[in-house]
Amino acid sequence: MTLDEQVAYLTKGCVDVVREAELRTKLARSAAESTPLTVKVGFDPTAPDLHLGHTVLVRKMKHFQDLGHRVVFLIGDFTALIGDPTGRSKTRPPLSRQQIRENAETYKAQIFKLLDPDRTVVDFNSGWLGSLGSEGWIRLAAGYNVAQMLERREFRRRYDAGQPISVHEFLYPLAQAYDSVHLRADAELGGTDQLFNLNVGRDIMPTWGVEAQVVMTTPLLVGLDGAEKMSKTAGNYVGINEAPNEMFGKLMSISDALMWEYYKLLTDLSLAEIDALAARTESGAAHPKQVKIELATRIVTDFHSAGAARAAAAAFERQFARRELPTEAEVFRAKVNQPRRLTSIMVAAGLAPSSTAATRVITQGGVKIDGVRVADRFHVVPAGHPPFILQVGRRARRVRPFRSAPGQKNPAAP
Amino acid sequence: MTLDEQVAYLTKGCVDVVREAELRTKLARSAAESTPLTVKVGFDPTAPDLHLGHTVLVRKMKHFQDLGHRVVFLIGDFTALIGDPTGRSKTRPPLSRQQIRENAETYKAQIFKLLDPDRTVVDFNSGWLGSLGSEGWIRLAAGYNVAQMLERREFRRRYDAGQPISVHEFLYPLAQAYDSVHLRADAELGGTDQLFNLNVGRDIMPTWGVEAQVVMTTPLLVGLDGAEKMSKTAGNYVGINEAPNEMFGKLMSISDALMWEYYKLLTDLSLAEIDALAARTESGAAHPKQVKIELATRIVTDFHSAGAARAAAAAFERQFARRELPTEAEVFRAKVNQPRRLTSIMVAAGLAPSSTAATRVITQGGVKIDGVRVADRFHVVPAGHPPFILQVGRRARRVRPFRSAPGQKNPAAP
Repeated sequence: MTLDEQVAYLTKGCVDVVREAELRTKLARSAAESTPLTVKVGFDPTAPDLHLGHTVLVRKMKHFQDLGHRVVFLIGDFTALIGDPTGRSKTRPPLSRQQIRENAETYKAQIFKLLDPDRTVVDFNSGWLGSLGSEGWIRLAAGYNVAQMLERREFRRRYDAGQPISVHEFLYPLAQAYDSVHLRADAELGGTDQLFNLNVGRDIMPTWGVEAQVVMTTPLLVGLDGAEKMSKTAGNYVGINEAPNEMFGKLMSISDALMWEYYKLLTDLSLAEIDALAARTESGAAHPKQVKIELATRIVTDFHSAGAARAAAAAFERQFARRELPTEAEVFRAKVNQPRRLTSIMVAAGLAPSSTAATRVITQGGVKIDGVRVADRFHVVPAGHPPFILQVGRRARRVRPFRSAPGQKNPAAP
Repeated sequence: MTLDEQVAYLTKGCVDVVREAELRTKLARSAAESTPLTVKVGFDPTAPDLHLGHTVLVRKMKHFQDLGHRVVFLIGDFTALIGDPTGRSKTRPPLSRQQIRENAETYKAQIFKLLDPDRTVVDFNSGWLGSLGSEGWIRLAAGYNVAQMLERREFRRRYDAGQPISVHEFLYPLAQAYDSVHLRADAELGGTDQLFNLNVGRDIMPTWGVEAQVVMTTPLLVGLDGAEKMSKTAGNYVGINEAPNEMFGKLMSISDALMWEYYKLLTDLSLAEIDALAARTESGAAHPKQVKIELATRIVTDFHSAGAARAAAAAFERQFARRELPTEAEVFRAKVNQPRRLTSIMVAAGLAPSSTAATRVITQGGVKIDGVRVADRFHVVPAGHPPFILQVGRRARRVRPFRSAPGQKNPAAP
């Protein structure tokens, strides 16, 4: 790859790159001196169960490895060992070293599906932060101003709202910054919510005699619903330990628009390759369903194997043929706070002009749920029902029931 | 002493007592359990050369000792060992352990003139702060809020003015507070400028399982000029290592109003005793000059001996008789930016109605400087001239020449 291509590959999908020119300089020097760059990424040791949302960042680490660089998978166990010293959060008890070791193993089992173990250093910041010493902490804290800290949006918001910020919360970004000093990081990657913390590292490194790191952030991945960020809580996720068929089926349910975002953030294809694929789809040379199958195949291959992906694709096709599932996943988010008449959902989803019309189609046998005909015109969808395919004649919707919080409006369909 | 008398004795002259009721409780418990209270006072190891201004605080420590309590003279060497980690202050290089030990000896030689060595613990906070550990610092910082810190007047002012406050400046009050935790202090004393820091100790102690300390502050002592706080820079001080005669003479130069303040802050007399003395002076039963001689005698006795004080008093009387010095020290602060005609000063000091009148008195032989007749009517006082007694006939002034900063007005005479 040329230097331009390297920069394009590494910055693909990134939200912030501070500064691209410095990244270019470091890459050029690395090549000239045949010395790999050190790329640092911090992870919280309390949440080792990854979904595709987390892999956006891990994949960005992989991209650096693809170009021969050295990645530090840094487990931020220093703060976890302490827990919440204010005693305010009952949900943050300190972790034991044993728990942290176990979580690290769980992490490894997952990340090495994407990362090259030979180019990955798994490290723990308690090693150096635990022995930083009083003078070290004072010196670290001396390198940053209160006003700079309060520029962080989250701090600013709480300060302005009169909500307490403990002084030790100012020490945590500095501790993370010191990790970069200790590791002599050339680059640090993180989610967009980490931009402030990553820049603190960038800011203080020169005062400790270390060249400032390049800071790069990856975006939050939108979940399967195309609406909220992917998370366990929202239920719109694909866990990287899920079975191939489950993973494949979930990925086939996303919208075409979301599919291109996933191509960008969940595959190693370059932007040029993705653009070419989009153009072929646009012109009709490639079929959207096939393009989506290719995406799902790539992702299942990453976390299982090519064989498993082929088998999952075949299984999906069989299921699709049997149930006449719609290829286009037009998702309708239906509010189902309490058991709701199917006819009401049909009207709300735009599959029938009125309740009367909806009742008529049901009695005529033209309505199916997940491929199974519904004969009862009083059919009710219970609260808590899982997503289903609703077919009315030749039209269909994926219906995703949800319970609204009190006072919450029906979120816009994607 | 009754409990009431103890409280009155200990709080005499204090600016803040937080809370007097707690002090009373602690004193009662101390008596009941025959266990002395621990009284902590922190001192900066960089400035061991004391003047009477510093002794206000040291004497308050003595008052606790007088009632049988244990005093910790705490040398805050932790921060001094680090110096200024921001590198902004070139005048604050780190001190070596050797320098700190030497400064401690200098301190001891001075404070043991007032304090009882047997009831004084001289300690150094580097002992526990240097080994506080990362978890200790985090826990310490977790116990205080950013908003609480910014309530400190000095921080608030700088923050509002956009002047930088380094994060480590938030750690220093917490470190001082931890001293109180470590020492299990029952009370902490300090100057009024220390009120915030002392209260931080009071605030955090309960979260470390230690009973909160009582906080007591002593006022700044006004200097000999009766105008500014006593300091070396202002030149209005009495050093506690000064010779008896010098000390005595300086003290005799203060105004009557200041004399009562000095009685309160620089002697062990109770307020009741001082009030009685003031009443006798008011009624004419005691002569102000004699009362001032008694004050000077008490102070010189404290720092030298009763014999030295008697000798100094006698020497002063002889000098007074010889030079016909004024008993009342009416001080006139004369601006002498460049050599200034004596006649001009006489007019400004109110000792002559006009230059012409002033010239006439000089030529008539009625003007003396420090008891020596001035014959030259063009006599000039050079810039930088030390203070002197100016007599015009039977009237006299202490003239204290000063240079004004550019644009500064002549400060009001006391």
